[in-house]
Amino acid sequence: MILSHSAIYTDYYELTMAQGYFLSGRHKEPATFDYFFRKCPFNGGYVIFAGISDFLNLLSDFHFKDDELQFLKEKGFKQNFLNYLKNFRFKGNIYAATEGEIIFPNEPVVRVEGNLVEAQIVETLLLNILNFESLVATKSSRIRSVAGNKTVLDFGLRRSQGFGGIQASKASVIGGLDGTSNVYSALIYGLEVSGTMAHSWIQSFEDEITAFRAYAEYYPDNCVLLVDTYDTLKSGVPNAIKIAQELEQRGYKLRGIRLDSGDLSYLSKKARKLLDAAGLKYVKIAVSNQLDEHLIRSLNEQGAPIDLYGVGTKLITAYDNPALDGVYKLGSVDGRPALKVSENVEKITLPGVKNIFRFLDEEGMFYCDGISLLEEENYKAIQHPYFPSKQTDVTLLQGYSLLTKVMAKGELLIDLPTVAESAAYAKSQLNKLNPEHKRFDNPHTYKVGITHALASLRDNLLKGK
Amino acid sequence: MILSHSAIYTDYYELTMAQGYFLSGRHKEPATFDYFFRKCPFNGGYVIFAGISDFLNLLSDFHFKDDELQFLKEKGFKQNFLNYLKNFRFKGNIYAATEGEIIFPNEPVVRVEGNLVEAQIVETLLLNILNFESLVATKSSRIRSVAGNKTVLDFGLRRSQGFGGIQASKASVIGGLDGTSNVYSALIYGLEVSGTMAHSWIQSFEDEITAFRAYAEYYPDNCVLLVDTYDTLKSGVPNAIKIAQELEQRGYKLRGIRLDSGDLSYLSKKARKLLDAAGLKYVKIAVSNQLDEHLIRSLNEQGAPIDLYGVGTKLITAYDNPALDGVYKLGSVDGRPALKVSENVEKITLPGVKNIFRFLDEEGMFYCDGISLLEEENYKAIQHPYFPSKQTDVTLLQGYSLLTKVMAKGELLIDLPTVAESAAYAKSQLNKLNPEHKRFDNPHTYKVGITHALASLRDNLLKGK
Repeated sequence: MILSHSAIYTDYYELTMAQGYFLSGRHKEPATFDYFFRKCPFNGGYVIFAGISDFLNLLSDFHFKDDELQFLKEKGFKQNFLNYLKNFRFKGNIYAATEGEIIFPNEPVVRVEGNLVEAQIVETLLLNILNFESLVATKSSRIRSVAGNKTVLDFGLRRSQGFGGIQASKASVIGGLDGTSNVYSALIYGLEVSGTMAHSWIQSFEDEITAFRAYAEYYPDNCVLLVDTYDTLKSGVPNAIKIAQELEQRGYKLRGIRLDSGDLSYLSKKARKLLDAAGLKYVKIAVSNQLDEHLIRSLNEQGAPIDLYGVGTKLITAYDNPALDGVYKLGSVDGRPALKVSENVEKITLPGVKNIFRFLDEEGMFYCDGISLLEEENYKAIQHPYFPSKQTDVTLLQGYSLLTKVMAKGELLIDLPTVAESAAYAKSQLNKLNPEHKRFDNPHTYKVGITHALASLRDNLLKGK
Repeated sequence: MILSHSAIYTDYYELTMAQGYFLSGRHKEPATFDYFFRKCPFNGGYVIFAGISDFLNLLSDFHFKDDELQFLKEKGFKQNFLNYLKNFRFKGNIYAATEGEIIFPNEPVVRVEGNLVEAQIVETLLLNILNFESLVATKSSRIRSVAGNKTVLDFGLRRSQGFGGIQASKASVIGGLDGTSNVYSALIYGLEVSGTMAHSWIQSFEDEITAFRAYAEYYPDNCVLLVDTYDTLKSGVPNAIKIAQELEQRGYKLRGIRLDSGDLSYLSKKARKLLDAAGLKYVKIAVSNQLDEHLIRSLNEQGAPIDLYGVGTKLITAYDNPALDGVYKLGSVDGRPALKVSENVEKITLPGVKNIFRFLDEEGMFYCDGISLLEEENYKAIQHPYFPSKQTDVTLLQGYSLLTKVMAKGELLIDLPTVAESAAYAKSQLNKLNPEHKRFDNPHTYKVGITHALASLRDNLLKGK
């Protein structure tokens, strides 16, 4: 159980609206809602979709407990509505993209179908989970993209936004990291977990060599020594070399050293030379300290001989863009398509019940995505959402729907993927995204169009408002 | 219960170190650790200390469960250490600043005393909670500072960093917000909670006036109408005026309208005029949409007639500075003061067991803080941490310790404050902080000095390394 009160993990207005629908007798009207985001974070070109497993998991157990109903009663909710909530379960359908999918702005990657109350009431839970996990998975994939096949670990729990760290460590692994220091998430999500020592271990002994020796005594086969507590090159690395030699005599090999301050490029090069000169080419160099994709790229460009990156604050909080702007909007109600206009043009929604198709080019790479009305099959072209004359012919392209029905009448239809499976899926899909879309600076915008039928529906509804 | 596995909500290295201390027989050695941060977030001049109640609460129930021990066993931890963990409880002492206190860089605002294992093993839990709650409480207090006596509510759960939203909503109230939309946090922390309708409520009806009328039907005494779904000034506000008139006939008053897009200054002024012209001066104007302290200040400066601010993403994620850099450092072990040197000068720690005194000026305002060794009483002066010649005489100043013993041998010594009490305390203390320290641009740095004795101890230890 990762959340003990999933039903009231919500905005109050979901409940006032739900009561309104109930009291007006509209709670049995069917409705559909779409989840989509509007802008790629980090000025990037894509998002890794994550969080759907956690959401479905919590939704399967979504119910109101007695103390929650009592709380709502004290707030003035009516008894007949509370009686309805007492037996409330989510009995709708959910169509969703696969966890780990590569997704783009304005794509309705989750569709919730149900009665007005059940489809409305899950909004906050859905947004809270999908927005954050997708955000961190995306950040992680950017870090992985520059780290190549080096080991990259999440060390961020101490700086994560409170209990959000539970999800962030998992999302990091979906996005491509190798593991985490977060034991909680490792246990509940089955992640690789690791860690060795903090500065306090070193400080707690009378001197550094004694601290190193003690650690090597208890962890001879997994010994990574933190070398910057006093003086990296004059004390830390020379002492680590002594320990490596002592370990060799015991039949072990020092696994690595870790740098956590100072100029990581300079220090890693100097440390590498000292280690190599001592015949310790096998000893790895791990680094940490405010790393992100830009710093790691810079360290690479400088030829820093680093084997392992520990990433903390910048990853776990998605520091330079700490929220994904995902929203959950009504698509249809009682068979009618619904539209939101808004003072901001970019906030005008796509009405109706929709599907997303991904079209591949002749090499099997992602070429463009089309958002269509559900009933459309084999449409011929897609257009730019706002400029109808900008069209793309899709007749000769192979395409497939991004949406899978994952829940029917409240019952899960799929085995939720493991984190390792989602990570593997994300990796395989990223390989099909052209590098221009993955570029950090001014990435080429991936083409997402809408069908003429969808555009017409939207434009006709707009005229009517 | 806000966290079901508090003992393994930790970095793996806390456990490898703990096992090392245990196996080497050092686990009974006494140690002290200090919590402090290094830099005020948001380029601000202070931090509101928050999270200590949640931390103490979790610490009171800190224990390892069977499935957690089994997990650690599979990772290779030794059976005798696991047996030790099985009965492990935190039995140390904790000295801490009051929740809601105004604190400054480098001040050891929490001291954990215990044996090496227990004092070490709580590090991640402590950092995770204090860093984030203090961050959000600080952001919230900045927002409150520009909002004057207007109502300000947290609407951020959908954009919060996953389950971190649970703590963020609470920390927002400690920092000065009036309430939240987050029902979960309202229940567990006793916060004011509110909310009315989303765009989906409006969209779900055939037209806006019908949607408004339906809401007014069920919530005649708490009706805030969202007016920007189709066209704020041509449709939303005129329809709201009609509803207000209908409510008057029923003996009720429309509580307000809410703007969630467009230019909030322009629209609020136009809406105010329309409402006033209709004799509806009592109808309040609420706004939301990417608000933070800078936007609210700007709206104030423009004379926007706004009565209520709903703040989301920018608050709940502390968007422009989404992590506080708080750390937890060994101060002493087995009676010896401990020092961390580091390649970065500003990361050199203050050794020993320390206290913090706050000195007031003749008007009762905060004048400066002094960090001393615990055994020092009635010292005469404090000095700049790095420039000994910069001194402040404190002999004539009234002072008091910021630290209270809140836990002894694992037992809570205090009744944990309610959120309302912590909020009131923060407010009262902020009133004693001169406005120059609260300024958004280049705030005057509040003076935090160290005693000569502490400086000597540090400098002598530095020479020895």
